Amino acid sequence: MTGQVVADQFSSRLVAVAEATEAMLEKLLQSHCLPGEKERPPRLLEAMRYGALGGGKRLRPFLLVETARLFGREGEGVMRAACALEMIHCYSLIHDDLPAMDDDDLRRGRPTVHKAFDEAAAILAGDGLLTYAFDVVADAPTHEDPAVRADLAVMLARAAGLGGMVGGQALDLEAEKSQAPHSEGFVALMQSMKTGALLLYAVEAGARMGGADERQKAALSRYGAALGAAFQVADDILDAEGDEQALGKRAGKDAERNKATLVAILGLAKARKRRDALAREAIDALDEGGFGAKAAVLAEAARFTVARKS
Amino acid sequence: MTGQVVADQFSSRLVAVAEATEAMLEKLLQSHCLPGEKERPPRLLEAMRYGALGGGKRLRPFLLVETARLFGREGEGVMRAACALEMIHCYSLIHDDLPAMDDDDLRRGRPTVHKAFDEAAAILAGDGLLTYAFDVVADAPTHEDPAVRADLAVMLARAAGLGGMVGGQALDLEAEKSQAPHSEGFVALMQSMKTGALLLYAVEAGARMGGADERQKAALSRYGAALGAAFQVADDILDAEGDEQALGKRAGKDAERNKATLVAILGLAKARKRRDALAREAIDALDEGGFGAKAAVLAEAARFTVARKS
Repeated sequence: MTGQVVADQFSSRLVAVAEATEAMLEKLLQSHCLPGEKERPPRLLEAMRYGALGGGKRLRPFLLVETARLFGREGEGVMRAACALEMIHCYSLIHDDLPAMDDDDLRRGRPTVHKAFDEAAAILAGDGLLTYAFDVVADAPTHEDPAVRADLAVMLARAAGLGGMVGGQALDLEAEKSQAPHSEGFVALMQSMKTGALLLYAVEAGARMGGADERQKAALSRYGAALGAAFQVADDILDAEGDEQALGKRAGKDAERNKATLVAILGLAKARKRRDALAREAIDALDEGGFGAKAAVLAEAARFTVARKS
Repeated sequence: MTGQVVADQFSSRLVAVAEATEAMLEKLLQSHCLPGEKERPPRLLEAMRYGALGGGKRLRPFLLVETARLFGREGEGVMRAACALEMIHCYSLIHDDLPAMDDDDLRRGRPTVHKAFDEAAAILAGDGLLTYAFDVVADAPTHEDPAVRADLAVMLARAAGLGGMVGGQALDLEAEKSQAPHSEGFVALMQSMKTGALLLYAVEAGARMGGADERQKAALSRYGAALGAAFQVADDILDAEGDEQALGKRAGKDAERNKATLVAILGLAKARKRRDALAREAIDALDEGGFGAKAAVLAEAARFTVARKS
């Protein structure tokens, strides 16, 4: 396939997965109760829907879905796992935007959840999405093998918890308060936890659902780790370059706040080189996995990650 | 057995389970990472430990452990499941105490997590405990059958989530803001979600781990629901009667705030009768389950729930 054909294929898959994610989230966030639930309070449900629906590229679901597809696995179960992951991502945005955390009023050009509702509703909506993610990932329709579902729950908890995303956010907030310059090693660790862990989980969950062998798993984990790192450097670069309109949030904010970013440490030129090298590493890892042309869309995701403008 | 012998047996079991819970929580909340975790940031871990260790009667772990014991199941796996449940309870206290929620400075006579650390740390410590609970409940050492572990994760998520505890807290906060008088049906629903759901889960999780049959499961669910309701009415009565020292939190607070309680609707005398009737219903349910003398400690738990002074 030529580069343009692959790029088009990637774009259409990204859109297709985003639409399927939206449809499944819509289905999961209905007002009727599941067995064991008593009532879904309307305002809480509305805040959860506001925080989860209608937004974003759905990159995490895309990575999970496309990795599972390498092994011929697709359909409802995969979409459920993808939505569980997206719920974790969305809850983290809701809590990170709170006044006591990053204190953001806008997210994707809309008022943040605590602005559209109130702080208590935002805390509870985040808690609700976080909790629901484990219901969705561990329940029977997600995979026929309960051992896979239990593994996915454990992997998701580790990626999202104190040794992953939550821990990364804690390190980031502490770094911001410290005023001291940050080492490259610290920034890499913090980012691998704050954003890298969930991106890596996306790929590892797809591999687990699809039944990858050891070699394939190792290659995909390398791909996911490199892609996650590339994604975060690209994000830092966009923020440094960014203008408010394109990002839908106040740009330049990272620089104001002694945020721990690789751009601050390496400068823009070196950061761009780092980003491109990480994307190449991600693509090389796919080659090592021996997936051949089937992995073209995942390789294109790595190229997209470095080329994106928002 | 005489009443006094059973009461003593109950007291010693309650202490033993509380100690085992503390020891297992201590083991789970160490600084070393599990596979898939990158680092456990020290200050975040400290806030999680502060919120989870050293407190409370550990009634939820007790109910889970004693229910599993009806079926001869005990040991590490049961303690892990008990601690996962307790982590959910502790996270809910941390988030409920936040300024945007109940705004409490004291909990069990100590500064609340956001007072001892800061608000961001309290939000993240809660998120971390909530997430970790699903790691602990779904991971292999908890039960040899992955189907049981996946089921426990789903059951826990439903008890704790938007159709359970989180939803109950949302309803409670809305009720408080409304100023309108609350119906008995609303209060019962809200309480069955806010506190009842986790107490019911404790019993249902013990039954699932122990391999209860349908009759036993139905009896234990009835026990758990009645006990949970009795517990909450007793709590409302204690608050209405309470003095600050005995409870370690500012008493009389519920009355100040148009809190939705059965005492406010029924008055103290009728609320006491309701509490006692619910406790009897719990004990009757155990009889129906046919557990005989083995269930004496659980029956005593129902008596304790209505007789406790804090």
